[in-house]
Amino acid sequence: MPKRVFNFSAGPAVMPLPVLEEAQRDLVALPGVGSSVMELSHRGKPYMAIHADAKARLVSLLNIPDTHDVLFLQGGSRLQFSMIPINLLKDTGKTADYIVTGSWGKKALEESVKEGTTNVAWDGKASNYNNLPKPSELKLTSDAAYVHITSNETIQGVQFPTEPDVGNVPLVADLSSDFLSRPIDVSKYGIIYACAQKNAGPAGVTVVIIRKDLMAHASSELPGYLVYRNHAEADSMWNTPPTFGIYLLGLVCKWLQEDIGGLEKIQAQNEAKAKLLYDVIDESNGFYIGHAVPEVRSKMNVTFKLGDDEKDKAFLAQANEADLTQLGGHRSVGGVRASIYNAMPVEGVEKLRDFMLKFMK
Amino acid sequence: MPKRVFNFSAGPAVMPLPVLEEAQRDLVALPGVGSSVMELSHRGKPYMAIHADAKARLVSLLNIPDTHDVLFLQGGSRLQFSMIPINLLKDTGKTADYIVTGSWGKKALEESVKEGTTNVAWDGKASNYNNLPKPSELKLTSDAAYVHITSNETIQGVQFPTEPDVGNVPLVADLSSDFLSRPIDVSKYGIIYACAQKNAGPAGVTVVIIRKDLMAHASSELPGYLVYRNHAEADSMWNTPPTFGIYLLGLVCKWLQEDIGGLEKIQAQNEAKAKLLYDVIDESNGFYIGHAVPEVRSKMNVTFKLGDDEKDKAFLAQANEADLTQLGGHRSVGGVRASIYNAMPVEGVEKLRDFMLKFMK
Repeated sequence: MPKRVFNFSAGPAVMPLPVLEEAQRDLVALPGVGSSVMELSHRGKPYMAIHADAKARLVSLLNIPDTHDVLFLQGGSRLQFSMIPINLLKDTGKTADYIVTGSWGKKALEESVKEGTTNVAWDGKASNYNNLPKPSELKLTSDAAYVHITSNETIQGVQFPTEPDVGNVPLVADLSSDFLSRPIDVSKYGIIYACAQKNAGPAGVTVVIIRKDLMAHASSELPGYLVYRNHAEADSMWNTPPTFGIYLLGLVCKWLQEDIGGLEKIQAQNEAKAKLLYDVIDESNGFYIGHAVPEVRSKMNVTFKLGDDEKDKAFLAQANEADLTQLGGHRSVGGVRASIYNAMPVEGVEKLRDFMLKFMK
Repeated sequence: MPKRVFNFSAGPAVMPLPVLEEAQRDLVALPGVGSSVMELSHRGKPYMAIHADAKARLVSLLNIPDTHDVLFLQGGSRLQFSMIPINLLKDTGKTADYIVTGSWGKKALEESVKEGTTNVAWDGKASNYNNLPKPSELKLTSDAAYVHITSNETIQGVQFPTEPDVGNVPLVADLSSDFLSRPIDVSKYGIIYACAQKNAGPAGVTVVIIRKDLMAHASSELPGYLVYRNHAEADSMWNTPPTFGIYLLGLVCKWLQEDIGGLEKIQAQNEAKAKLLYDVIDESNGFYIGHAVPEVRSKMNVTFKLGDDEKDKAFLAQANEADLTQLGGHRSVGGVRASIYNAMPVEGVEKLRDFMLKFMK
C-alpha cells in the first residue's frame, strides 16, 4: 500500500479511497470485458451500461424528478458560464439576474453580459465577499430569464445554507464545490451545474441537471456543442463523452450510496468535520482569522488567515512537512484554505485540527 | 494479469499496455507525492510538471516549431468544428474552404456555415466518400481564411497520404484519427487538432496545435472558453484542464519516444499492420470488399464489407467469440471496420488476418 497524504486541495481534490482502489484494480482490463474502461467504444454495451449506471445513481442520490434531464458535458463551469445565457437569455428580450457572492459568481456574470441584458441583483464586494444577501437586499427583476447563484464560493468559503427565494423565476446554480455534499430539492432549480473535480470525480466532466422545458428556446444556428438540447436528445453522446471520468463519477456515487449511506449521512459528516476546524478558529482569540461571517461559512472550504503573510507561509510549510498538503489559499486571496470535501476522511480533519492547535502554541 | 482481448474500437480505442500498467501502478498514490494524479491541484508543482512534460514530449515528437502553440482543451473535435470558424472566419469578410472527404469533414462544414461564408472546395459524396480530390478538382478560394481537411476519415477509412497544396492559405486539419501515427511537417499547418481517444489518450482531451498569429483576430466579446487566445495565454489553464487525461497523453508520448523510438518507427509499424489486412482483402476475389480506392486507403481504419448484411453479422459475431472485439462499422455505414491505431499490437492484426482467411474458407 503506497503512502497517502491528507490532501486539502480545492480541486482537483481528494477522491474516496475505495473508488481509487476499484479503478486501479480494473484499469488494465475490466472483468468480463477484457479492455480498460477508457478503451471502450462509447457506443458499445459495456460502456453504455456504465454511462446509464452513473446517471441512474445520480438520479437516485438527488431524487431528480422526471421534469429534469441529467447531462455529462465537457468544458467545466467556465463553459457553463457561457452556455447558460446562450441557451436561456440570448434573443429572449429578458434580463438575467446574478447574485454575486464571490470570485466564481463574478466570472459567471462576466460571460452573461456578453450574451444579453444582465442585472446584478446583489454583489458582496463591499464586504470582500464574506457574506450573503439578506432577502430584502436582493434587487430581482420580475419575469427574469433566470436568477444565477453560486451555492458555495470555493475561493472565499461562503455557502448558501439554503436556496434564496426567487419566486417563479428559474433558479440556476453553480454547485461545483458543494454538489453531492448534502441533499437538495432539485425541483426548485432550473439548472444545477457542477464540474466534477471537487466532490464527484476527476476534472474533465461537468454535470448539468436541467429542467427540460428550458432547452426549447436555443436556436439551432448556435454552435452545436453549446446547445443543451443536442446533448439531451443524444443522452450525452452527441459527441464522445469523457468516458473514464463518467465511470469514476459513477463509482463515487456508488460509494456515497453503499459505503456512506446517502446524502443525509454525508451532510452530517461534512458538518461535523467543518465544526472541528471552525471551533479552533473561534476559540483562537484571533490567532486564526476566519474569512466568512459564521452564519454563511462553507462546510467545504474553510478559509482563514494568520494575520500576516510570514505566519501564513510558516503554517503552510510546516503543515506540508506533516503530510497535510495543498492548504494554500487561492492565488487571488492568499492565506489558508482547507478544502474538506466528501472524500476527506475525518482523520485528516482531526490531524489538521491538532496541527492548528499545536502551531498556535 | 487479467485477460485482455484485441480491441479494434474506432475510439475510444486500445491504449498501449505499458501506459495502462504505469497508470495502474500509480493510480492511488503517485510516488513521492502521496496523492493520485487525478487528486492534484492543477496549480501545484507535481501536476504542473506533468503538464509541462506532456507538452514538451508532443513538441519533441512532432518537431513543433516556436511559431505554434500547443493547447489541451475539452469538448472534442465537435467543439473545434465551431471554434475554428469562430476564431478564424467570423467577422473577417473572408471565405473558408472545406474539402469534404467523409462524415467528419461534413460535420465540420455544417458548423462553419453557421459562422461565416463557407465554400465547399470538394465533396466526395458522388463516389460515396471512397476517394480524395485530384489537385485539378479543388475549387479553392484565393485569399481564403483557411482550408479545412480531415486527414483521416475514421468512418470511411480514407486518408490523405500527404497534405494538399493550398498555397499561402492556412491549412486547418482534423487529425483526430491519425495524430501521432506518422511524422508531419507542422510548419505547413495553421491548425492541427485531434481528440485524444484514438492514438493519444482517453476521451476528454483535445490537442490543438495552432500558429500563434492566427489567435489575434477573435473578439474578446466571444464566449471566453471559445477563444484560443485565452487558453494559449494561460498555458491551457484558463480553466481546470482534464488533468488525468493529459497525464495519460504524456505517458503515451513517452511510450512512443522510449518504447517505439519515434514517429518514423510507428509509421513503419502502422504501414506493415495495414498491409496485412489489405492484402487479404485484395487477394480475396471479392469476398471482402474494401471501401476506399487503394491509393487513399487509411492506415488506421480498415473498412470493408462482405457483400450482404447477414455475412457481415456472422463475421462480427464469430470474431467477437475469438476475442477480436468492437469490429463493427460505424452505425451510419455498417459493415466491418478494423481500427488498428498505434497501440494495436501486430499480434492482434495477425490474429485478425488469420481469422479473415479462415472465415473466407
